[in-house]
Amino acid sequence: MSTGIKAKAALISVFSKEGLEPLIKKFNELGITLYSTGGTEKFIQDLGVPVIPVEDVTSYPSILGGRVKTLHPKIFGGILNRQDHQGDISEMKEYNIPQLDIIIVDLYPFEKTVASGASEQDIVEKIDIGGISLIRAAAKNFKDTLCVSSVADYQEVLDLISANDGVTSLTDRKRFAAKAFNVSSHYDTAIFNYFNEEDVVYKQSFTEGKTLRYGENPHQKGTFFGDFDAMFDKLHGKELSYNNLLDVDAAVNLMSEFKDENPTFAILKHNNACGLAQRETIHQAYVDALAGDPVSAFGGILISNSEIDKATAEEIHSLFCEVVIAPSFSTEALEILKGKKNRVLLVQKPITLPNDQVRSCLNGVLVQDKDAITDSLDDLSVATDNKPTDEELSDLIFASKICKHTKSNTIVFVKGNQLYASGTGQTSRVDALRQAIDKAVAFGFDLKGAVMASDAFFPFPDCVEIADKAGITAVIQPGGSIKDQLSIDYCNANNIAMVMTGTRHFKH
Amino acid sequence: MSTGIKAKAALISVFSKEGLEPLIKKFNELGITLYSTGGTEKFIQDLGVPVIPVEDVTSYPSILGGRVKTLHPKIFGGILNRQDHQGDISEMKEYNIPQLDIIIVDLYPFEKTVASGASEQDIVEKIDIGGISLIRAAAKNFKDTLCVSSVADYQEVLDLISANDGVTSLTDRKRFAAKAFNVSSHYDTAIFNYFNEEDVVYKQSFTEGKTLRYGENPHQKGTFFGDFDAMFDKLHGKELSYNNLLDVDAAVNLMSEFKDENPTFAILKHNNACGLAQRETIHQAYVDALAGDPVSAFGGILISNSEIDKATAEEIHSLFCEVVIAPSFSTEALEILKGKKNRVLLVQKPITLPNDQVRSCLNGVLVQDKDAITDSLDDLSVATDNKPTDEELSDLIFASKICKHTKSNTIVFVKGNQLYASGTGQTSRVDALRQAIDKAVAFGFDLKGAVMASDAFFPFPDCVEIADKAGITAVIQPGGSIKDQLSIDYCNANNIAMVMTGTRHFKH
Repeated sequence: MSTGIKAKAALISVFSKEGLEPLIKKFNELGITLYSTGGTEKFIQDLGVPVIPVEDVTSYPSILGGRVKTLHPKIFGGILNRQDHQGDISEMKEYNIPQLDIIIVDLYPFEKTVASGASEQDIVEKIDIGGISLIRAAAKNFKDTLCVSSVADYQEVLDLISANDGVTSLTDRKRFAAKAFNVSSHYDTAIFNYFNEEDVVYKQSFTEGKTLRYGENPHQKGTFFGDFDAMFDKLHGKELSYNNLLDVDAAVNLMSEFKDENPTFAILKHNNACGLAQRETIHQAYVDALAGDPVSAFGGILISNSEIDKATAEEIHSLFCEVVIAPSFSTEALEILKGKKNRVLLVQKPITLPNDQVRSCLNGVLVQDKDAITDSLDDLSVATDNKPTDEELSDLIFASKICKHTKSNTIVFVKGNQLYASGTGQTSRVDALRQAIDKAVAFGFDLKGAVMASDAFFPFPDCVEIADKAGITAVIQPGGSIKDQLSIDYCNANNIAMVMTGTRHFKH
Repeated sequence: MSTGIKAKAALISVFSKEGLEPLIKKFNELGITLYSTGGTEKFIQDLGVPVIPVEDVTSYPSILGGRVKTLHPKIFGGILNRQDHQGDISEMKEYNIPQLDIIIVDLYPFEKTVASGASEQDIVEKIDIGGISLIRAAAKNFKDTLCVSSVADYQEVLDLISANDGVTSLTDRKRFAAKAFNVSSHYDTAIFNYFNEEDVVYKQSFTEGKTLRYGENPHQKGTFFGDFDAMFDKLHGKELSYNNLLDVDAAVNLMSEFKDENPTFAILKHNNACGLAQRETIHQAYVDALAGDPVSAFGGILISNSEIDKATAEEIHSLFCEVVIAPSFSTEALEILKGKKNRVLLVQKPITLPNDQVRSCLNGVLVQDKDAITDSLDDLSVATDNKPTDEELSDLIFASKICKHTKSNTIVFVKGNQLYASGTGQTSRVDALRQAIDKAVAFGFDLKGAVMASDAFFPFPDCVEIADKAGITAVIQPGGSIKDQLSIDYCNANNIAMVMTGTRHFKH
């Protein structure tokens, strides 16, 4: 049985007339009868192509300021009838219903109207009713009807129709039906998200994505759904991988803590900072970030809050790194960094990232809002007799910012606006601490006078005792353990300053 | 200006008649005129309540086997007209269009039909066209129309209507409009997902979720969207937190590797295993899992692949732990474990978790399929002259399973089906290794004859050298570094067996 259908009539009802002309002319050439409404009808007429107003079919005018135009049984009968169904065929004749083989609809621009900051009334007026109904009906009846629901598909339709003299295949019509429900579900998701004021519903709709080479590992498929170009100008390098994107996300969020501050440079691996420093020049910031852990830096993701200059680029060039992100690159720096073919160079635009964070969990997803609190001097309460010095206070806040963006459990050491070491992703806090000490020692740092940040409270006083013996003189932590006092007592007895933030920063 | 509208007429068109009777009777009592179609019309008649067939309004029959019933300008005019708009009011009179204040629609059960394994034809027939159009039109015109789109809302509508003699407020109508677009977007998302054969589109729609006490931290809001009861019977304890759910997810995925094997027990903290053992009895498995890291186990998540018996429960009871998951609990075990009020006890049902994994990234989401490969003996190639013993081979596979579910970078040590130690979430592989050695030593394990698993290849031979000096005799790793041979050479020179899997297991 052939499933090819030669189109004899098309209904066209579009908001934007963009890209329509070649289709209209081709339809006319193929002898396809055109039905239309309002502005689209006039557009077709102006092309000198015959068109039948929908009102001539329905014998009913467009009413309520255009709110009701196509919602008529003769139109929906023309779309929804089953051409292999004898009862349908009889009714079509009896009620003089025209067969409509192709439906082309372009919806009112709801999302654009919302984004433009329009009034509620204007937004509500842009909720398309008739168009969605036409699209859904035509898609449902894909066995007999071709549904064209997006300007983006016009060229493909033109090619299909031209290649086969107006004949379309069942496979193609079904594929276009999928596209149609992509459009309708996306449209109503956007409307729902506009109306919704409750948190207990989760909807996400991305109508296109970027297929990545693979997922977290080569045997997994991976796709990024988002607007990369809205965030970055990619100046150079290979396609970003799944793991690159995760690292870039971690890097951008970490660096957002140091926006508008002195030149700051960070190096990340496996989503954690392995080096970070703030200095008078970005060159020095890079050198001191790298010193934090030159071993982990190999193959890392680099991010700067300031323009990368020639001196910095020369240093970076000798390191194998996957991605370099900066607000800008000097011409010479760019020239140097382009010296490695695969190295990705990204200019970060000013961006606001979404507040909702989602991740798969069991048979569903967990959704939460971002950890939006950055600890500041105003939030601190000093828990010990010993007060931190101004320098220590500055380092404590600095350490807390890094801590917030490091995987739990974590302990972070900072001195003079430089990350000395961190313990990351540990199952016990004391292990995170020991790891941070080992790393600091391994890379030649003297912890005397350094400060410590902890992402969560100390359940026991063992951490402050170990930190003290390593040379730490000030500690920042949320507080809140029933045994806080034991840690405070230890600090008081050993001249350590401890400040409480009241804010835990778990990150998994 | 009052926004309260007293309903005079309602259109009711539902697939399921469940829960409808009290509403019909109340409407009748309030003198609300009822319009309806087909089966719903008969249902109302059978209640002895007067009802006007939609066909009487449209003077048009239901055609195409019911595919076109309500899609008529008189119906949509009755729903979409603006009661504060003089032109609309005139047209309503001119075309004899009845005002329809309330629309009640229950859609064809598309998702249920798909889930039932019905044929494509049956499924396509269940794509509701008229119902969705009614719902969307009524929701758009929420200023004048109340849209009831779910059986779940009937009681609320009854209460609203009863309390105010048929008067509804603008606030309520707008809230119901949001519900309507929740229904329509969810419905079309399900249809799209049924049709879609391409990967480059991502849609997710959960129409209800469980608000959690908070998110990852107390200052973040968190919600779980999923069907917890389909996966677990909760026998005891407090509400699960965001972090509990993340840990339960990690625990269930980890334990799925040891399904149908000897009794196996795992303890997790911060999504990583800190103890895991497989033994002849679940009691011994627990004891040896705990021995892996009794410090981290504090406040952990416990999971067993076998029934928890009395002896095991007695041991567990002396530990502070958040959640215990098992396929079953003996009566005595349950009694003992219920001894702590907050401790969550979960019976895990047989479940298949979704293949697609999603997580927020930058201004969008990353989607990938699960890491579905479990390394088995068949996949291994021995890279060294030295072949692993059968015991080592068994431990290598065991270690690889744990490695796959531990955060990257990770190194895992196993001996005799017991996790000796792991390095987790490290920015450098050699740090992960050092951490694992330190932990093993700290908890009294002798690494002589233990095996090592690495989630990714060794870029340099330093790891095998350090592992060798710690006593490791066999290694499992993906291979694939350009410097693999250096590690192989070291192993050959030092009587270490190394097997390659070809499969990386990054997890972030």
